[in-house]
Amino acid sequence: MTTRSKAIVLLSGGLDSCVCLAEAARDRDLAVLHVNYGQRTEQRELSAFHAVADHYHVGERLVADISYLERIGGSSLIDTAVSVETGLPNEGVVPSTYVPFRNAHILAVGVSWAEVIGARELWIGAVAEDGSGYPDCTAEFYEAFGAAVAAGTKPDTSIVIRTPLLNLDKEKIVRRGHELAAPLHLTWSCYVDGEAACGACESCQLRLRGFERAGFEDPITYR
Amino acid sequence: MTTRSKAIVLLSGGLDSCVCLAEAARDRDLAVLHVNYGQRTEQRELSAFHAVADHYHVGERLVADISYLERIGGSSLIDTAVSVETGLPNEGVVPSTYVPFRNAHILAVGVSWAEVIGARELWIGAVAEDGSGYPDCTAEFYEAFGAAVAAGTKPDTSIVIRTPLLNLDKEKIVRRGHELAAPLHLTWSCYVDGEAACGACESCQLRLRGFERAGFEDPITYR
Repeated sequence: MTTRSKAIVLLSGGLDSCVCLAEAARDRDLAVLHVNYGQRTEQRELSAFHAVADHYHVGERLVADISYLERIGGSSLIDTAVSVETGLPNEGVVPSTYVPFRNAHILAVGVSWAEVIGARELWIGAVAEDGSGYPDCTAEFYEAFGAAVAAGTKPDTSIVIRTPLLNLDKEKIVRRGHELAAPLHLTWSCYVDGEAACGACESCQLRLRGFERAGFEDPITYR
Repeated sequence: MTTRSKAIVLLSGGLDSCVCLAEAARDRDLAVLHVNYGQRTEQRELSAFHAVADHYHVGERLVADISYLERIGGSSLIDTAVSVETGLPNEGVVPSTYVPFRNAHILAVGVSWAEVIGARELWIGAVAEDGSGYPDCTAEFYEAFGAAVAAGTKPDTSIVIRTPLLNLDKEKIVRRGHELAAPLHLTWSCYVDGEAACGACESCQLRLRGFERAGFEDPITYR
């Protein structure tokens, strides 16, 4: 009998995290984590989370509420007074959708849960490419946070952060998703709430361009 | 007119954070942050937080609910199935009161808030001494987390973590509190819920020993 190690995968319900889960599902036992931080599209993301987790028969799920971020504000994703940019991102500009230091909160939840359930890896589908401009989506940030995890957890704990998509662009992520038969039709990427994806926000534009360049049709519905 | 820089101080309502706030209050504009993580003594701690903040006339206050940590469990502070140790801690042993990676969550909240309100420092009254054995109360952890903050926040942001008590023991903390006229009578340190402090848990024992060695009487009420 082979012992498979247990990994927690951060699953927002979007394209990237779904492909990240598909990677981890190849040879790991899985637990999935979703966070609600008061984002506009939370209910839609949460149903995508459960649909993708169901697809992979993952029983161990945690949904953590970090909606204090909503009260802190500072981002168009959680503050309806700030509008979401449309179109593709500008190189070198941190977009209004940046939620200050958000990924540190998400990683911290994953690390605490990993210590308790004995998971040895924490997978996150963060992407540095596409010029998204989020400072908490860089290799430098994940390396530094990994050092903080090593220093700040019990000496007998070893929790490694894995970022398999960090250097892929959306075209490669879509291709990889297809190779792994990831259920991309169950995912949700749009930043604007609604029944169907808006097709115009930064996230939709990046996704649509990725599918187009990969030569596949995006299976979700757009307005 | 002198420009004072703004600092966020993490204020649990305990002895250490009160002395930390007293240090920062000397020459900083202040904002105070309290987190509720489902700890047994939350209501008592919260009233100590407000009393100490009132004493220093701090208007800018944030209470963040990170009680998802309660569902994650793994600590006697938040899991009533695990009993709290009494007596002084054993060197080299991580006590049952350790909440996995807790300080990373607290720091992450502080950093996000600092980015939004323009604070340039985040003060935390963590103490590595007294053999408390918490891995997230070490200089190594704070240095590594500081590097993650530098990498994971906007390029034009500079948020420094300050740990003025890190290498002090309780005796020195009590002395410093007296020098700064910190309102130690308003603080709460006990890990066990109650009207009066239990006097027996690890936290009470460390506190009482600190006052005794410093030659002062602890002004709070014990059972």
